[in-house]
Amino acid sequence: MATIAQTTVNTIKFLAVDAVEKAQSGHPGMPMGCADLAYVLFHDYLNATPDHVDWPNRDRFILSAGHGSMLQYALLHLAGYDLCLEDIKNFRQLGSRTPGHPEFGHTQGVEATTGPLGQGTANAVGMALASKMMSATFQTDTFNPIDHYTYAIVSDGDLMEGISSESASLAGHLGLSNLIYIYDDNDISIDGSTDLTFTEDIQKRFESYGWLVLTIDGHDHDAIRGAIDTAKAQSKQPTIIIAKTHIGKGAPNKQDTAGSHGAPLGEQETKLAKENCGWPTTPTFLVPDEVRAHFQARKQQVNQTYQAWQQGFEKWQQANPEKHKAWQQYWQKEDFNLFESLLKDLPGMPDATRSISNKIQQSMAQHIPNLVGGSADLACSCKTMIKAAGEVSASNFQGRNLHFGIREHAMGGIANGMALYGSYLPYTSTFLVFSDYMRPAIRMAALSNLQTIFIFTHDSIHVGEDGPTHQPVEHIPSLRLIPNLQVARPCNAQETAASWHWAAQKHNGPTSIILSRQTLADIPADSYKDILKGGYIFQEGKEKNLDLILIATGSEVALACEAKAALEKQGKTVRVVSIPCLEIFEQQDADYIQQVLPADIQKVAIEAAQGDLWYKWVGQEGLVIDMHSYGTSAPGPEVATHFGFSVDHITECIMQG
Amino acid sequence: MATIAQTTVNTIKFLAVDAVEKAQSGHPGMPMGCADLAYVLFHDYLNATPDHVDWPNRDRFILSAGHGSMLQYALLHLAGYDLCLEDIKNFRQLGSRTPGHPEFGHTQGVEATTGPLGQGTANAVGMALASKMMSATFQTDTFNPIDHYTYAIVSDGDLMEGISSESASLAGHLGLSNLIYIYDDNDISIDGSTDLTFTEDIQKRFESYGWLVLTIDGHDHDAIRGAIDTAKAQSKQPTIIIAKTHIGKGAPNKQDTAGSHGAPLGEQETKLAKENCGWPTTPTFLVPDEVRAHFQARKQQVNQTYQAWQQGFEKWQQANPEKHKAWQQYWQKEDFNLFESLLKDLPGMPDATRSISNKIQQSMAQHIPNLVGGSADLACSCKTMIKAAGEVSASNFQGRNLHFGIREHAMGGIANGMALYGSYLPYTSTFLVFSDYMRPAIRMAALSNLQTIFIFTHDSIHVGEDGPTHQPVEHIPSLRLIPNLQVARPCNAQETAASWHWAAQKHNGPTSIILSRQTLADIPADSYKDILKGGYIFQEGKEKNLDLILIATGSEVALACEAKAALEKQGKTVRVVSIPCLEIFEQQDADYIQQVLPADIQKVAIEAAQGDLWYKWVGQEGLVIDMHSYGTSAPGPEVATHFGFSVDHITECIMQG
Repeated sequence: MATIAQTTVNTIKFLAVDAVEKAQSGHPGMPMGCADLAYVLFHDYLNATPDHVDWPNRDRFILSAGHGSMLQYALLHLAGYDLCLEDIKNFRQLGSRTPGHPEFGHTQGVEATTGPLGQGTANAVGMALASKMMSATFQTDTFNPIDHYTYAIVSDGDLMEGISSESASLAGHLGLSNLIYIYDDNDISIDGSTDLTFTEDIQKRFESYGWLVLTIDGHDHDAIRGAIDTAKAQSKQPTIIIAKTHIGKGAPNKQDTAGSHGAPLGEQETKLAKENCGWPTTPTFLVPDEVRAHFQARKQQVNQTYQAWQQGFEKWQQANPEKHKAWQQYWQKEDFNLFESLLKDLPGMPDATRSISNKIQQSMAQHIPNLVGGSADLACSCKTMIKAAGEVSASNFQGRNLHFGIREHAMGGIANGMALYGSYLPYTSTFLVFSDYMRPAIRMAALSNLQTIFIFTHDSIHVGEDGPTHQPVEHIPSLRLIPNLQVARPCNAQETAASWHWAAQKHNGPTSIILSRQTLADIPADSYKDILKGGYIFQEGKEKNLDLILIATGSEVALACEAKAALEKQGKTVRVVSIPCLEIFEQQDADYIQQVLPADIQKVAIEAAQGDLWYKWVGQEGLVIDMHSYGTSAPGPEVATHFGFSVDHITECIMQG
Repeated sequence: MATIAQTTVNTIKFLAVDAVEKAQSGHPGMPMGCADLAYVLFHDYLNATPDHVDWPNRDRFILSAGHGSMLQYALLHLAGYDLCLEDIKNFRQLGSRTPGHPEFGHTQGVEATTGPLGQGTANAVGMALASKMMSATFQTDTFNPIDHYTYAIVSDGDLMEGISSESASLAGHLGLSNLIYIYDDNDISIDGSTDLTFTEDIQKRFESYGWLVLTIDGHDHDAIRGAIDTAKAQSKQPTIIIAKTHIGKGAPNKQDTAGSHGAPLGEQETKLAKENCGWPTTPTFLVPDEVRAHFQARKQQVNQTYQAWQQGFEKWQQANPEKHKAWQQYWQKEDFNLFESLLKDLPGMPDATRSISNKIQQSMAQHIPNLVGGSADLACSCKTMIKAAGEVSASNFQGRNLHFGIREHAMGGIANGMALYGSYLPYTSTFLVFSDYMRPAIRMAALSNLQTIFIFTHDSIHVGEDGPTHQPVEHIPSLRLIPNLQVARPCNAQETAASWHWAAQKHNGPTSIILSRQTLADIPADSYKDILKGGYIFQEGKEKNLDLILIATGSEVALACEAKAALEKQGKTVRVVSIPCLEIFEQQDADYIQQVLPADIQKVAIEAAQGDLWYKWVGQEGLVIDMHSYGTSAPGPEVATHFGFSVDHITECIMQG
């Protein structure tokens, strides 16, 4: 007679196997190997309930090994989330709630979009960090509204990715004792045994980061419970539970083989696996009533935990009205429209936009208490510290300034985890050229509709002496290509304020704010009334009949204005259009766009970056003054002149043109 | 009385200090802290000589912490490389040989372009791996033409970056005993003490990877020699020497502070530092004759080592003419023009271009014995194994197939290191969506003019079920934006052969070959005579007067041909242009481009990717049928139809447009 535990594990396994089989696509091996782990975790530990999905103090769970999505779908279904059997039968079909990899915001109960390996390990660190910070900010002597755990199931692949090393090192440094990785150590990856490439000593590696490391048989439920209990019994370190598992466990011919990893088991092996596990071969998608009842009981238990928390919370809220007001601000994320107030107290020009941004950031930080963030060891260069706000460390989670170390990729993933958590508006900063190091995390933010703010400074060849390795050329347009990412490159204080406005205003997506290292000239616009439209007439032509429109962004706007002055001396009537955010400009109605960039006027785009995207705006008959090679090491102004970013060269191009 | 060692160390330090001071830009602290290490390494160990800079068996040295470039320039100058004192005085100036960060191919003796942290750690692994493979391929019982070491000076920043974890894990796995990292452990990064973020146990971490770890006082010359000797005395493991150093050593007020990291010491502190070290305050850029003589003697010593090697090599070459012929092939890198021969034996269509590519790769591998490479655990999916060529492992370096593990970033950096090494044509492979994970390495290949081949498969939404996390959208255009990178996206067997031709033909830059997961229809071109021009008329219109040109790449070429057929039924005369490599097409003369894409004919670009770059080619009045959002999880053909990649939708757009 099978125990309820065995029956439940089999239910999970064969929901996964049947779904992959029906879709003829997916990964059965991982859910089969992790069914024991996930069952114990979801049934015995995870304090989360479909009846209160937004409960701030719920435990967070991330399936970092997102290819095992059916494991998570099976458990969400059993746990009572809004995911019916029909959804599971539609695994990987158009419009279904059960896409190939878990998608945040798409399927109830999914806390993070995963699939690209390693991202989930960083997201989990971000969640655990957010949770520590929330606890430090809001707990009182009598009640701690945030004391939950963050769990992640991580795979060999996750741990091979560099982002997991970066994230784990920082998590150990910060002593995130509320973080528990369960490592599905199955010795198999797509190309075969992990012996092919992955023979490092994981225990020693995680000990080197300051983690508690526990090793267990991942199919032994008592051992799983023992390990999680040990992890939770201490408050100094994050924990990794190395769970030795068998991929495809239960499949008589495919267990422990790469063959069970990324392809359906096949009709015959499915049948054999079910027989082998004592499971009926039909019907498919079998969920015994006792299994439903088993999880129903668990749900009631968690609901009671929730009620108890709610009672404590209500007392806390009455006793601490100021804290509660702040709490609401943190979670509700008002639609901040601070632009008008920012404009009233703008920093003076001339200055570098990184310095201007820092001053504006201080105002933002005053209005937005949950604006937190930091830099990958470039806080002083990027100028992104929040003043008098304290620095987060293992002994103090009350600060707002984070030090990520020289770990750009983890920085992005951790900030995304904080955004996913729900109570923070996180920002990161580094040099623009290093946006490449964190690009997979930027994509995940955009794809998952996360409001992460990515600040990048030292934004062009104007960086100067550091040379081509540090001079971005292709990065601005490359960021513009990422769907659902706003890319703001301001030219002065007003536009920097607008950039922060766009970043902070309530919307479902990240913003990248791109800033200069060098001081920019103080050239004002005729008017800023249309600035929030993303692109606007910065300086109008002297005469009525326009000869030419110069389009520019950031540091090249002042250059365009100087070129305009020079060209007007030569009898041309020239308009300068500044486009601090192309994505927002593009959303304006056709009339406005036509008004700013009339179809029949010649156009020249000037940007110290690869400029091919500008042909969409200037047309084939237009001119693009840009960078088509790497930069060079020399003082910034010399580099600029060398590559043609000078009034003389621009006017010459245009007059010849 | 100062010893010659002390005098030399001071010479190195103050060349760096004076150069940074004169440029008013740069990093003095690192060269001051590492002068002892670098002196001992260059003078006592590094078997490299300016008289034979291309000596295959020279030791390789990489300054992974490239911001300390003046350290390397000072040593190259003293060692007699083509870098005079005037060059050093021109540090960081326009056109100088001493740019802000070391640049391969620009300054004699610089073996790798460094600066973006972590890249050098991977390049060094690539060089050590290449060296092991060369040795395994060419050594005989009596002579081993390759038995040198690869040294890298690595910094805190390098070791925080994920790529260093990935690289070191693989180096340990492969037991690269010819690799020695010297870790400049100075406890300081830009934002202050490394205690802020970096408290992991480096010894334990590297032991977990299987490295030999030695810890020394980085200013004690005997200890440095002892550690390098210990590293070289064993043949099982790579070694990291943790050298405890003081950043800015010798500067009385700035030693051990972030203040010495990235800014000139200043006039006063420079004076104090020189006094403190017993060094004349004037003249600046002082190189005592005894120091020159000291390095001159070293050079003669290495030249003797070279002569001895040369004698051994000549005997070996006479005794092993076949091996020697191969040896020459490896190092000379012929200009492979295999296109004609590839065309004679093309794989049949219909098939996926990843499968076609694999077949063509086998022919390439037969003709190019030094074509080696591998995948980030996706060899079976990307189909990039060289058949019957063996797999490289710690116990066998004779194979040609590499397993990188799920470490895309390290894969890129290691392949670059193999390209830098000089005897290999390396390739990598993974899914296109994961090109983001290795983008910094792709940029370094392009910036450093390295002929690395980056193969990316699963190239669009046609990936299907895996969903948006695995469906590239912005990646093809993002790669096209990287200067000096060829991006080839073939549509059939002929174009896949052309892609390999472009990748292998002698030129100074990387190529990315972008391949489909799915089978592509078998639609032939009218003619392939212009295929190597990067873009050509694939199918000409039925009638003479063209109404429309459809431009497409890869999987969309067949779709364009089907749309052409449908449109011709509706009376339109339509040409289809395939552009498998836009970079090469763009290099053609204006006449050819005008002939293929006449200015006055309406154009429509079709590509299952973000398409804004195509407006440069279709004009503002043209049409771009592309992806402006993320994809979705469903069977590939359904995803394609959903997003408008169907004949019906395309003809509808065009007929309405």
